[in-house]
Amino acid sequence: MASLLLVLDLAGILVFAISGALLAVRRKLDIIGLLALATLTALGGGWIRDILIGAVPPASLADWRYLLVPVIAALTTFWFHPVVTRRERTVDVLDAFGLGLFCVAGALKAVEYGVGPVPAILLGIVTAAGGGVLRDVVALRVPTVFGPGELYAIPAAAGATIAVVGHELEFPVTPVAVVAATVAVTWRLLAITRGWHAPVPRT
Amino acid sequence: MASLLLVLDLAGILVFAISGALLAVRRKLDIIGLLALATLTALGGGWIRDILIGAVPPASLADWRYLLVPVIAALTTFWFHPVVTRRERTVDVLDAFGLGLFCVAGALKAVEYGVGPVPAILLGIVTAAGGGVLRDVVALRVPTVFGPGELYAIPAAAGATIAVVGHELEFPVTPVAVVAATVAVTWRLLAITRGWHAPVPRT
Amino acid sequence: MASLLLVLDLAGILVFAISGALLAVRRKLDIIGLLALATLTALGGGWIRDILIGAVPPASLADWRYLLVPVIAALTTFWFHPVVTRRERTVDVLDAFGLGLFCVAGALKAVEYGVGPVPAILLGIVTAAGGGVLRDVVALRVPTVFGPGELYAIPAAAGATIAVVGHELEFPVTPVAVVAATVAVTWRLLAITRGWHAPVPRT
Repeated sequence: MASLLLVLDLAGILVFAISGALLAVRRKLDIIGLLALATLTALGGGWIRDILIGAVPPASLADWRYLLVPVIAALTTFWFHPVVTRRERTVDVLDAFGLGLFCVAGALKAVEYGVGPVPAILLGIVTAAGGGVLRDVVALRVPTVFGPGELYAIPAAAGATIAVVGHELEFPVTPVAVVAATVAVTWRLLAITRGWHAPVPRT
Repeated sequence: MASLLLVLDLAGILVFAISGALLAVRRKLDIIGLLALATLTALGGGWIRDILIGAVPPASLADWRYLLVPVIAALTTFWFHPVVTRRERTVDVLDAFGLGLFCVAGALKAVEYGVGPVPAILLGIVTAAGGGVLRDVVALRVPTVFGPGELYAIPAAAGATIAVVGHELEFPVTPVAVVAATVAVTWRLLAITRGWHAPVPRT
Repeated sequence: MASLLLVLDLAGILVFAISGALLAVRRKLDIIGLLALATLTALGGGWIRDILIGAVPPASLADWRYLLVPVIAALTTFWFHPVVTRRERTVDVLDAFGLGLFCVAGALKAVEYGVGPVPAILLGIVTAAGGGVLRDVVALRVPTVFGPGELYAIPAAAGATIAVVGHELEFPVTPVAVVAATVAVTWRLLAITRGWHAPVPRT
């Protein structure tokens, strides 16, 4: 079970890291830029959460495997970015799984550190979307999660909410986490395929 | 007294949050963008201070009322932004009260955590102006507090300095805080009405 | 010895701060912008490291001398920026010494706080280059360290690696630190004078 979770976690990090490295390629950055954006995108959301709840040093700094995955993502993207770019829709789909995993894991970690239910949900969203915000800000792009693209934060909020409510009701953690992540992933994938957007203020 | 302070604090957060949501509207972001920029603008300065002094999780994460206010600000701005935009000068005036409150409260909290007088003043300025810096950076605008608009950080520095000096001289905290906040608010309002600017390097 | 280290540290901060203030001048910011960018550039890398390892409040907040140096840099740049700009190549050369110092000191501080070797090297690079990243992001410039300018992060990585490996092998700290910093400085200076760049993905 623990090793399944580790593999899922590393897989999520890999996909997030690739999206960071791809943006670095588009900005014509060098290998350092690819490495930095890959790492920041993949681990940045968790770092923000860990800093806010006082879980320092963050787990992903203490375990070299978490640092190795963005390096692999950056090098792969460095050599094969035309292939990766052509499959960007595949990256988006895989990214949905990272989203589902991170919003649930992030919210539950916050709960574990004694944070209340509402901030725990917020920190679940931050874990899932925060790395992408850092990636976009550093590359001078208004964060895509803030609109007007397909739904991203709302599925993450749904997953985090289910996880936290299930925890409050003292349901067993594994089935709750699976349901929560499945809802987030499914909602995000439907948003991509059907073109669902969050509402935008009328002008 | 405690409930007066809470109301003032929440009022300051509300005004800051509205300025964040307004910028999100101007950037054509969706409701997620409005919520995120409202929250970041309202609470971001305090979070930076709390992270730097080790007061984690920040109070505004532990108390759901602090998280509710940016939601109200974002939803109000979402539906009524043409009205809010027409009254942007009013938002600026109300923002001056948030500035006065946060620079004093921020500096005193830093002092309470054992930080010396000079860094406490700096952290007071960060509490008042840091949220606006985060708002601007995320929305790809050079932070307005860095110039060349009307004085903002200097009134905050004055308020924080009076609060910290009063604390060092062991004056009673309430009158000192009132004087410090009044100086900051008045100076900021005069800067707005008279068009006072900080000096800019000659070219 | 301790006072030599302090002088070196403050000298490194001064040069980093000048590069921040110069960018603020170019962005036509006011004196507040110069002060903020000088402080962020000079101390921001260390703050990120300290926040991630839990060394809060950061040393540079606890000691007013660290806060005074960016003020001096900002005021000097405010009045004499045409002179400083004409000598920007000199600033680059002096900056190489700051780079060498900070990557080694940053990595060793991380080791001291119980971080493993790989993250300690990463945090050494962050200490040396993080302030510049913050400076660039706030001033809306894609961070220069991410390319495609002359090598910056790679010399920092070399210095941090030598320092950490030397520490792991239990070599005496002073000669290891001197060798590590010398390698980083020399490599960076050679990169500037010979125009060495990190590889960029093929388009």
